[in-house]
Amino acid sequence: MKLEFNGESWEGSRKYEYKGNKDVIKFVLFGKEEGLNFEVRVFVIEPGGATSLEKHQHMHVVLVLEGKGSALVDKKLYDIKPFDGIFVPPMTPHQFIANKGERLKILCIVDVDRDKPHKLSEDEILELLKDERIREVIKVQ
Amino acid sequence: MKLEFNGESWEGSRKYEYKGNKDVIKFVLFGKEEGLNFEVRVFVIEPGGATSLEKHQHMHVVLVLEGKGSALVDKKLYDIKPFDGIFVPPMTPHQFIANKGERLKILCIVDVDRDKPHKLSEDEILELLKDERIREVIKVQ
Repeated sequence: MKLEFNGESWEGSRKYEYKGNKDVIKFVLFGKEEGLNFEVRVFVIEPGGATSLEKHQHMHVVLVLEGKGSALVDKKLYDIKPFDGIFVPPMTPHQFIANKGERLKILCIVDVDRDKPHKLSEDEILELLKDERIREVIKVQ
Repeated sequence: MKLEFNGESWEGSRKYEYKGNKDVIKFVLFGKEEGLNFEVRVFVIEPGGATSLEKHQHMHVVLVLEGKGSALVDKKLYDIKPFDGIFVPPMTPHQFIANKGERLKILCIVDVDRDKPHKLSEDEILELLKDERIREVIKVQ
């Protein structure tokens, strides 16, 4: 079965709003409905937008498809560009941020059976904000 | 953790030959070593080259990253281009073929625990070769 990409979306994929965040659209390409143990999603992040700042037990594998931005993983900030891969270990704070003027498209793979994300505590956020570069880039929602 | 793509390969990824097929290189980006239940690989297929014509119980999810080619799934042949997704159900004959003049780069996700591939039987191959278009495109190795 083929899910054709038409330049904007995947025909036949499931498209979702993302946690009330208007800068992000989520597509679920393949997952539980196909009987898979993993789910393959794409997040399209508008210029300057970001995914949630969060952590959870389940791991993330991300591959950048298009655009440039930053990935926060734990207390490290990485510049990301097409085909860079990012691994987020369990219970690790993370966020993906699109550069200004760049729409960022990332593929993200997770287990179908997974826990819900947690927001970071105030202490965790304050700790992150001590770093000047992180402070400039991340979005505390 | 970031696996940086340097235009040709991923620094820190594991790079493999592919079943004695000189037209294909396999990279394992993330998998068992990270404690994941799924494995994320990239296959780079030289112009005119192809992956094995095979089937197995485990499912494949494929996303085209670069280049154009064809995907055989069961008895259907699909034209594929960047960001098209392909799902291969259990025990379904399949092959990915790069067009002439096009290096095809595909991401492929599978379970870490999976069965080994089977070659197709002679009868299955003869059945496939009845279709003129399939006959022109697939590579019977």
